[in-house]
Amino acid sequence: MKVGILNVTGYAGIELARLLSRHPNVEIAAVTGRSEAGKDLPGVFQHLIGLDIPITESLPDSVEFVFSGLPHKASAEALLPFIDSGVPVVDIAADFRLRDADEFRRWYNVEPPRPGLLPGAVYGLTEIRRREVANSKIVANPGCYPTAALLAAIPAVSSGLAEPDVIVDAKSGISGGGRSLTLTNHYSEVNENVNPYSLGGHRHLPEIEQELAAVSGAKPRITFIPHLVPMTRGILASCYLPFADSAPEDPVRLQTLVTEAYNDCYHGEPFVKVTPTAPLTKATYGSNRCLVHPKVDARARRLMVFSALDNLVKGASGQAIQNMNVMMGWPETTGLDFFPVYP
Amino acid sequence: MKVGILNVTGYAGIELARLLSRHPNVEIAAVTGRSEAGKDLPGVFQHLIGLDIPITESLPDSVEFVFSGLPHKASAEALLPFIDSGVPVVDIAADFRLRDADEFRRWYNVEPPRPGLLPGAVYGLTEIRRREVANSKIVANPGCYPTAALLAAIPAVSSGLAEPDVIVDAKSGISGGGRSLTLTNHYSEVNENVNPYSLGGHRHLPEIEQELAAVSGAKPRITFIPHLVPMTRGILASCYLPFADSAPEDPVRLQTLVTEAYNDCYHGEPFVKVTPTAPLTKATYGSNRCLVHPKVDARARRLMVFSALDNLVKGASGQAIQNMNVMMGWPETTGLDFFPVYP
Amino acid sequence: MKVGILNVTGYAGIELARLLSRHPNVEIAAVTGRSEAGKDLPGVFQHLIGLDIPITESLPDSVEFVFSGLPHKASAEALLPFIDSGVPVVDIAADFRLRDADEFRRWYNVEPPRPGLLPGAVYGLTEIRRREVANSKIVANPGCYPTAALLAAIPAVSSGLAEPDVIVDAKSGISGGGRSLTLTNHYSEVNENVNPYSLGGHRHLPEIEQELAAVSGAKPRITFIPHLVPMTRGILASCYLPFADSAPEDPVRLQTLVTEAYNDCYHGEPFVKVTPTAPLTKATYGSNRCLVHPKVDARARRLMVFSALDNLVKGASGQAIQNMNVMMGWPETTGLDFFPVYP
Amino acid sequence: MKVGILNVTGYAGIELARLLSRHPNVEIAAVTGRSEAGKDLPGVFQHLIGLDIPITESLPDSVEFVFSGLPHKASAEALLPFIDSGVPVVDIAADFRLRDADEFRRWYNVEPPRPGLLPGAVYGLTEIRRREVANSKIVANPGCYPTAALLAAIPAVSSGLAEPDVIVDAKSGISGGGRSLTLTNHYSEVNENVNPYSLGGHRHLPEIEQELAAVSGAKPRITFIPHLVPMTRGILASCYLPFADSAPEDPVRLQTLVTEAYNDCYHGEPFVKVTPTAPLTKATYGSNRCLVHPKVDARARRLMVFSALDNLVKGASGQAIQNMNVMMGWPETTGLDFFPVYP
Repeated sequence: MKVGILNVTGYAGIELARLLSRHPNVEIAAVTGRSEAGKDLPGVFQHLIGLDIPITESLPDSVEFVFSGLPHKASAEALLPFIDSGVPVVDIAADFRLRDADEFRRWYNVEPPRPGLLPGAVYGLTEIRRREVANSKIVANPGCYPTAALLAAIPAVSSGLAEPDVIVDAKSGISGGGRSLTLTNHYSEVNENVNPYSLGGHRHLPEIEQELAAVSGAKPRITFIPHLVPMTRGILASCYLPFADSAPEDPVRLQTLVTEAYNDCYHGEPFVKVTPTAPLTKATYGSNRCLVHPKVDARARRLMVFSALDNLVKGASGQAIQNMNVMMGWPETTGLDFFPVYP
Repeated sequence: MKVGILNVTGYAGIELARLLSRHPNVEIAAVTGRSEAGKDLPGVFQHLIGLDIPITESLPDSVEFVFSGLPHKASAEALLPFIDSGVPVVDIAADFRLRDADEFRRWYNVEPPRPGLLPGAVYGLTEIRRREVANSKIVANPGCYPTAALLAAIPAVSSGLAEPDVIVDAKSGISGGGRSLTLTNHYSEVNENVNPYSLGGHRHLPEIEQELAAVSGAKPRITFIPHLVPMTRGILASCYLPFADSAPEDPVRLQTLVTEAYNDCYHGEPFVKVTPTAPLTKATYGSNRCLVHPKVDARARRLMVFSALDNLVKGASGQAIQNMNVMMGWPETTGLDFFPVYP
Repeated sequence: MKVGILNVTGYAGIELARLLSRHPNVEIAAVTGRSEAGKDLPGVFQHLIGLDIPITESLPDSVEFVFSGLPHKASAEALLPFIDSGVPVVDIAADFRLRDADEFRRWYNVEPPRPGLLPGAVYGLTEIRRREVANSKIVANPGCYPTAALLAAIPAVSSGLAEPDVIVDAKSGISGGGRSLTLTNHYSEVNENVNPYSLGGHRHLPEIEQELAAVSGAKPRITFIPHLVPMTRGILASCYLPFADSAPEDPVRLQTLVTEAYNDCYHGEPFVKVTPTAPLTKATYGSNRCLVHPKVDARARRLMVFSALDNLVKGASGQAIQNMNVMMGWPETTGLDFFPVYP
Repeated sequence: MKVGILNVTGYAGIELARLLSRHPNVEIAAVTGRSEAGKDLPGVFQHLIGLDIPITESLPDSVEFVFSGLPHKASAEALLPFIDSGVPVVDIAADFRLRDADEFRRWYNVEPPRPGLLPGAVYGLTEIRRREVANSKIVANPGCYPTAALLAAIPAVSSGLAEPDVIVDAKSGISGGGRSLTLTNHYSEVNENVNPYSLGGHRHLPEIEQELAAVSGAKPRITFIPHLVPMTRGILASCYLPFADSAPEDPVRLQTLVTEAYNDCYHGEPFVKVTPTAPLTKATYGSNRCLVHPKVDARARRLMVFSALDNLVKGASGQAIQNMNVMMGWPETTGLDFFPVYP
């Protein structure tokens, strides 16, 4: 299958190129990247010597599947012609994530691309919406933080053990902010620094709310604070939830029920693993894995759930390919079945 | 004044040496360090070329003030002779921090050093217990995490605006774990990693409980989870608290009250600064500062407080010197009045 | 083919497990690791959840190929039974690298394992000794530094353009020193530090001398200084050589000849790439690539060659698998044909 | 004395502010910073809370001493009015470093600011030109790399033990490139990377040549290659030189002579220390120190000299203050007499 990548020169785009180059069912037919159009991939990215694909201004009509790594708004604009032609797409940007057009307007300060398309788009958190993904041609790839937060919180909430009242304290590597230059990714400013940001509300919050509402049937109450930590890749989401009133008193029994709920939810999942010990971002580096660990705080009677993933893989390009695999009816692990790089 | 440092070869001890070497009122009379006894400081620490002090097995009786950077238990044992002689001491270890001997036994699995001394010891969170510190000869220097957590939470709780119900999600550099070798400070294991640890309860938790109880008059409910992040120095504590029922509804009014409470509490403090924006650990590097920033989450109606400090300075050796200054009746900033190193 | 890995719990061993788990022609039949024997791989290495292989004390006789990631001496001792049984082996340690038993004694302070085996062993710098590797059952995998230094220096020397008189200034990530705990891999000591070491002579020096002598036909003169830099993976070797008297005066002509020599030497090589710009260690991360860039310093009339590789892949486990592929007559890139992880 | 800082918002400028704030003889009277004019220092730099100095467009005439942290050309332009008024200045930029106007043109592609001033300007490598600095009102502060390279190489060359033929392989932290945004200081590009750059010739090369020529009386032959390594502060310069023909054969004797030459050269220097072991950049962090270690490579008969410093202190702002102290006749260590921050 001939695939195209929009904006290959961003981190999500170039990670798509790396991963798709080893996917047995696809050929990278074309890649775009405005600022570098006219060069080929190895001319811009030394790690891709040998992947001699020219960077162009736009994709040809002949592509049979499109991934977009463009920023929001630009992403939908570039995808619309393909959507209209019936080409299946995965959008790594936010343009098709929020089902409520007003929410989109509120958080992104622009008009939603074409509201009529929203009912046909699926929020592609693969493990949770696998069937809808399989039947859709427009998949909105989740944000990196929501992927970590939702995979951590959903089993607790959907099992009824915890309330949909979550504090998500997330720690992220710097690549999540993209390849554009800002003071917040200047090495000397980032190194030896922990930087909590978007204290007034981060754009990934409404996604978390939307998907947790879908699971719980109620409007959730969510505090989400991201922190930049000095590393390139990785997110650790530490989630804190109150137990439901119906949850048993005994903390040992509670831990058993919680662990069962997580094991049940992720049983057989190739990419989500419930770990017996605290998850480490390092144990996901370069892979499509998400590690999840629920733990009862018996003293304070609170549920804590920790999740770890690589923001550029399960948090972006890897999950996008996982979604493509599901959309195409291929084994879900195709092209993604490798272990993290450690140490 | 002739001061002695016990265990100068640990990170707290060697930071004491750096800071005290520029303190105008003291002379570093002697330093101990079992494994390196017989060498002098520059023979072990290249950064101290010029501070030609021999490392010995024990301190002479002539020292007039003692700092201990030993591990718990060993610390009290080494300090007791000096305490018995009336020499004022600051213990950076935990031996005199907990007023309840049972709590100490529970968390440290050893007998408290000499319970009869506990009533005379002061928990040296200087800004909160300045008067008691001034009148004591045994100051228990707070742990690094409790310093960050308590300076963040106390104004909210003591003002009655928030309940003594706190989630402390702390991110720490690696030096907090000391200079001894473990896999959790092996560079290749730590780098590109966020590592949540002590999920079952960290030894710094009872200190936070004890001091928050003292402020609130009630038993607090505390979840405290530390995370290692790949940097050498710095702690960022992100604290989440529910508002008291009596707190006003309107979030703008709430933010005003909260900010006032923090400004009132830390008005005139030389080392604790309430910041108008999110605090950065980098903005405290090498200094005795603690930056605190309270922020109302209006959507979820929760109080968030972020605090940043250097775990080896305000979180250990700097605060120890601050306490010495108070104990001796010297200006509190003596020897500590310099800015952080940035970038 | 059933392969065994000796000392899977070191960094070379665990990297072998990661890479071999995706090699289509082999099955990891058994892995050893003294300190962790009795556990399985995911019980020690969270990144390998799903690779459920027990860690044992020793390998069964049924293995058909053995890799050793043991330290020198222990490595040969563990390999000898397999060698005697005719099982092909790749030794990542130094035991079969030096052809001169006296040199081995001098640098390693132990007796060479069994000198009679040395003539049958091959120094497995694959690109240079491909034919001998194909015909040997004992391949001594080169050290990480010699791989970088030799791939950089050999074309210049073998072409006669430069003298076998090389200064190798190498910068390495910390993982090259292994997983054992030392102050030189303690995060707080390593971070924000450049540490030149082994100034009196590093054990990798005699390998570089031996192989450069083989190419040049003369005893080379080599200064080799490794430096630790704060990163996990990667070596950059900066090599400085005088031109031969016969080399042309004109620097432009000289650059042309040099570039041609490198292109000729590595033409068609799947893993060694001559780059048009300075090579970056980051562009090799997690891959079996070595990037080489020769550059004439016209002002000082000197040849500079820069090479970059991942010390755990091309510098250890990847090259070991490359050697296995050659020994078994398989396509050399089998199981190694993927791009580096970037950023 | 009232001092002014031009371009306080660059890293050299802001480091001047940190250091001068604790200098007993000066008052920071004014600071400029075009992009942030109108704010005060704490409004831009959180670490300077408490140093409430407004950032302005230009300095008032009343300043009695001026430091410039501006880029070249802009620096001279801003300094000329003060120079013309007889105000002493230290220029951290390159505008007054090269005595040969043609060299300046060649390397910087602009006209030298006012060639007539060059004879009165001094290259302020304080230890080497202390007397001239004391008698000058225009001091050109050396570049960070040249400071490290020259302090390493000069004793060897001036003693006649080595030829003025030096390979300088330098490794630098990222802050040396300044606070402006480029891909080469984007965290995700820099982390886990060693990046050799300016292979065709770095602008700091002519300074090294000029000053080594002054010492040796001959035109030196210099290869200088800088490498970016993933850390914020620090330079390690590894220098390789051939011995002079007159140097003794015996390597032990040679080492003795070399060590003596270095000890003689830097005897009594407060900031340059000859170390008995390899110098570490970490042992200079935040201080004005330069550590130097000469070592004979007996096998290859070459002199190796390693020097370490903090590029923002001894490599920039600290040395600028050291020069001011000398210019003003104050003790040279005034305001600079503190130890490095470790770890």
